Amino acid sequence: MIHAYAAHKPGGALKPFEYDPGSLGDDQVEINVESCGICHSDLSMLHNEWGLTQYPFVPGHEVIGTIAALGTAVTDLQLGQRVGLGWFAGSCLTCQWCMSGNHNLCLSAAGTIVGRYGGFADKVRAQGSWVLPLPEQLDPASAGPLFCGGITVFNPIVQFDVKPTDHVGVIGIGGLGHLALQFLRAWGCEVTAFSSNPAKAEEVKQLGATQVINSRDPEAIAAAANSFDLLLCTANADLDWESYINALRPKGRLHLVGVVPNPLTIPLFPLILGQKTISASPLGSPSTVADMLDFAARHHIAPITETFAFSQVNEALETLRSGSPRYRLVLQH
Amino acid sequence: MIHAYAAHKPGGALKPFEYDPGSLGDDQVEINVESCGICHSDLSMLHNEWGLTQYPFVPGHEVIGTIAALGTAVTDLQLGQRVGLGWFAGSCLTCQWCMSGNHNLCLSAAGTIVGRYGGFADKVRAQGSWVLPLPEQLDPASAGPLFCGGITVFNPIVQFDVKPTDHVGVIGIGGLGHLALQFLRAWGCEVTAFSSNPAKAEEVKQLGATQVINSRDPEAIAAAANSFDLLLCTANADLDWESYINALRPKGRLHLVGVVPNPLTIPLFPLILGQKTISASPLGSPSTVADMLDFAARHHIAPITETFAFSQVNEALETLRSGSPRYRLVLQH
Repeated sequence: MIHAYAAHKPGGALKPFEYDPGSLGDDQVEINVESCGICHSDLSMLHNEWGLTQYPFVPGHEVIGTIAALGTAVTDLQLGQRVGLGWFAGSCLTCQWCMSGNHNLCLSAAGTIVGRYGGFADKVRAQGSWVLPLPEQLDPASAGPLFCGGITVFNPIVQFDVKPTDHVGVIGIGGLGHLALQFLRAWGCEVTAFSSNPAKAEEVKQLGATQVINSRDPEAIAAAANSFDLLLCTANADLDWESYINALRPKGRLHLVGVVPNPLTIPLFPLILGQKTISASPLGSPSTVADMLDFAARHHIAPITETFAFSQVNEALETLRSGSPRYRLVLQH
Repeated sequence: MIHAYAAHKPGGALKPFEYDPGSLGDDQVEINVESCGICHSDLSMLHNEWGLTQYPFVPGHEVIGTIAALGTAVTDLQLGQRVGLGWFAGSCLTCQWCMSGNHNLCLSAAGTIVGRYGGFADKVRAQGSWVLPLPEQLDPASAGPLFCGGITVFNPIVQFDVKPTDHVGVIGIGGLGHLALQFLRAWGCEVTAFSSNPAKAEEVKQLGATQVINSRDPEAIAAAANSFDLLLCTANADLDWESYINALRPKGRLHLVGVVPNPLTIPLFPLILGQKTISASPLGSPSTVADMLDFAARHHIAPITETFAFSQVNEALETLRSGSPRYRLVLQH
């Protein structure tokens, strides 16, 4: 039996929950969970905001742990090896997207907490291909958030060939944004943080920003017109998209990785005149996760975390719901 | 004196109009106009839809003619040489965008009919760098529309590295779309036309489409889900953007080159899940125009035109206003 924490209705408190995972699939591994980060999408799923949630619902998709059991077909992982697991727990491995290294775009990719039980548990299972060894240089106690928050912001840097000469802005400095700043500084970019909390300015500069713009000050954003090759938006709120499009340089890209409540309203003229782009993306492929882990290890990039015991899971969720954790919450056994 | 046709108020009829162009700038050339295409943006400017128009307003920015006079600094064109001129009549040549070959993104680029008198005239002037020699293999009587309509759809093919293996859809088969079909067939792509006029289907296939989807049939568009690497939208009407985003494959791009009346409403979820992109662009640089002309000459790509005498300019504009010319109108001396 696996001992987990589950909600039984939308927004319900998490309670101890046992389930029998059945026999281990040939292509699966079972992970002994050591820690699990808490992502905003755990909350969105808990409240069934996306209409995808099945109850009992076990959140958790930023898992660090050790391999407890190996399916017969898994040859590249070892019992006891320390690994991580993120949003995706499997993909078909045979479609054009999997075959071309874009496993995160597989049309039948399985989410770790979508129709499955996640990592708020003592054990969790996933397809071996989506379980990545954690480099020794990374601290297992804080590395969990790399596997969702981290790859979510690292992937577009790779996908869109961001260059060290680029001027990049990060909108929203929370769980995702504080990792984006670290990645982009190490990438060699000029990095600007757009933060709604000016009190964070000094911290944000230490994370990699060379300047901080108050995202609640429309004049400050207007003054940054034609400044950015890339604006990476981690916010999950509706923003004044036009003002950010105007802040892009010609050929610039506004890339969104946060789920915002309403459809985007995009004025076309500035897009045409400046050959500008709006895009979005989901996480990254296992290969990109591996590159990210290697890059993070070499550049000493790590999530800044606040730790709760698994038994405090409801307090931890309340902390995320009510404010701005600095910067990511992690549950630990 | 230059003899032109000008409107004196928004939407006004064009009437003969003379003006003294003054002395020729060192970097300018004067063109003896032989023909000039009529673009939808001539109509938009005539009606001051974009708030950019100054009256008297002389439309015309798809000019074919011969060099009548050369400024002292223009060394790469010759008197009598046959040339073309499009939407842009000049740029600063010194900013980062001009210096990197992106002259069409120069923040101070001058539109041929924006604060200047255009090509509905016996002569027109422009900066020499924006006046391109017409290859001998191209028919001067029909080539004018390449310089605006043509480059508008050719440029994104170059800018976004469209591959011959790509599956591309062209939305709207008019002045721009009928050129896009020809370019994309010659590029090696699989080409689908989205047309609101099923009566055009046979013609559209001859232009390069391997299939035609009725753009007024939501079910037909829905059936094309996950099909296209690129959707090139030439329409200047508000469409159901979500249905076209769903028709993109993962990593697909919806690229707009027509000015649509209202801001785009873009649902974010399908953009995130499929790592999809929305973009737009204005025309192309002189270097890309030169590449297009060479490519058009090699592949026998030409606008299909209907010709009017310059003295019939108001009838020609009425024809464009009222319907769907097949496919581009050209005024001829």
